[in-house]
Amino acid sequence: MQDWQGKEISLGPTEQLEDLQRCNLKIIQSTDTFRFGIDSVLLADYAPVRKGDRVLDLGTGNGVIPLLLAGKREPGLIHGLEIQPRLVDMAKRSVALNGLTDLITIIEGDLCSPPEALVPGSYDLVVSNPPYLAAGGKLNLKPEVAIARHEVKCTLADVLRTGARMLRQRGKLALIYRAGRLVDLLTAMRAENVEPKILRFVQPTLVQGPTMVLVLGVKGARPHLNILPPLAIYDQEGDYTQEILDIYGEEG
Amino acid sequence: MQDWQGKEISLGPTEQLEDLQRCNLKIIQSTDTFRFGIDSVLLADYAPVRKGDRVLDLGTGNGVIPLLLAGKREPGLIHGLEIQPRLVDMAKRSVALNGLTDLITIIEGDLCSPPEALVPGSYDLVVSNPPYLAAGGKLNLKPEVAIARHEVKCTLADVLRTGARMLRQRGKLALIYRAGRLVDLLTAMRAENVEPKILRFVQPTLVQGPTMVLVLGVKGARPHLNILPPLAIYDQEGDYTQEILDIYGEEG
Repeated sequence: MQDWQGKEISLGPTEQLEDLQRCNLKIIQSTDTFRFGIDSVLLADYAPVRKGDRVLDLGTGNGVIPLLLAGKREPGLIHGLEIQPRLVDMAKRSVALNGLTDLITIIEGDLCSPPEALVPGSYDLVVSNPPYLAAGGKLNLKPEVAIARHEVKCTLADVLRTGARMLRQRGKLALIYRAGRLVDLLTAMRAENVEPKILRFVQPTLVQGPTMVLVLGVKGARPHLNILPPLAIYDQEGDYTQEILDIYGEEG
Repeated sequence: MQDWQGKEISLGPTEQLEDLQRCNLKIIQSTDTFRFGIDSVLLADYAPVRKGDRVLDLGTGNGVIPLLLAGKREPGLIHGLEIQPRLVDMAKRSVALNGLTDLITIIEGDLCSPPEALVPGSYDLVVSNPPYLAAGGKLNLKPEVAIARHEVKCTLADVLRTGARMLRQRGKLALIYRAGRLVDLLTAMRAENVEPKILRFVQPTLVQGPTMVLVLGVKGARPHLNILPPLAIYDQEGDYTQEILDIYGEEG
């Protein structure tokens, strides 16, 4: 397999090339490590990228969010920070495969002590799909999945502290998080001076309670919250709602 | 007009006796002061009264919430605190009219410096429908309405501080509040050690964003939030939903 310049890109034994169904983008996934889910797709759709924006994804995993954002309104650059070398390697190969090395840079490093390549105060938008679960509980047996899902390597507070530091004043932070941790999320954002401005709850259906929440915060903004109509994943017949179909089928 | 013991109860010139449509309860309302709305009815339905509970309503207005709670699961006693003498007088007459003076006591006083009749740590449940709006904005021309709607006499922080102080350990706090101030509400509750445990958003319809939020907090509880399915007021045809009809028609 070759990238757009003809350079050879190889796949590991547990890896597959999957179609992101957007702008003809491809992504390398593996059966034995972090695989992206609907949460990453919803976050990439929700994140308010503007033309020329400098964007940072904290905990980028296999690079799914930078790839999805690359198709949206011509960001200026996208940096993806990831602590796990294997995922960094997969993400870098996916970026190369899609011919996006000029736009997306995958950086290996710990968001608790960010590498110097990340310049504080320089980003217009920070996105993150942070680990949802406390570290104390039953961990996933695969360490790479545990790190992505549990607060093993970093907590929500770490993500928000680094996110706030990396943003310029009035820069935006977009996250998706477990709805049951809403109080932790909102109090921690306010503590880091990134005021929650827009919330959107994600519900299995319109008549069920939310399982996830999308939040947009603005660094240094004054308190005032707008809560959007809920986003339902399934309709009454158990099919995807039109909005979910639109998000998955969206062309950038 | 007489109370249940035959004592004369009089109505002022702008006052009417209205039917609460529950347990044959009546309430004195006036056209020129605070009138209860759907928020009070929703809060009374949401508040988890248990048999024998000692209940406190902070900012009771014309006493609508104590009257509605009196019909629910036999609380032990209900205290309603109100700062405005005219509303205290209306509430006391409504309590007498309904023959509930043994159960409900309306107390005149300022929740920022609660009267001695309120014993800290003695309540199982505190409820409040606090003023929604910041004091700085355009105030309602009627001072009594302004006090009920705007943070003129007390802020949300005052309500939560006094509520937390009045509750016993593990006691419950139930509030209804404007959805746009959710961050203020949740951060202030946690700051007072009343952990938000259950949220329910109130939406005009299932497909619109919430305008109000019902919250239940528990004093001294550990963080874990459950968000219930949204409560829609109207259906697609613009009629009340069955749940709203049930809440209004509920017999205690």
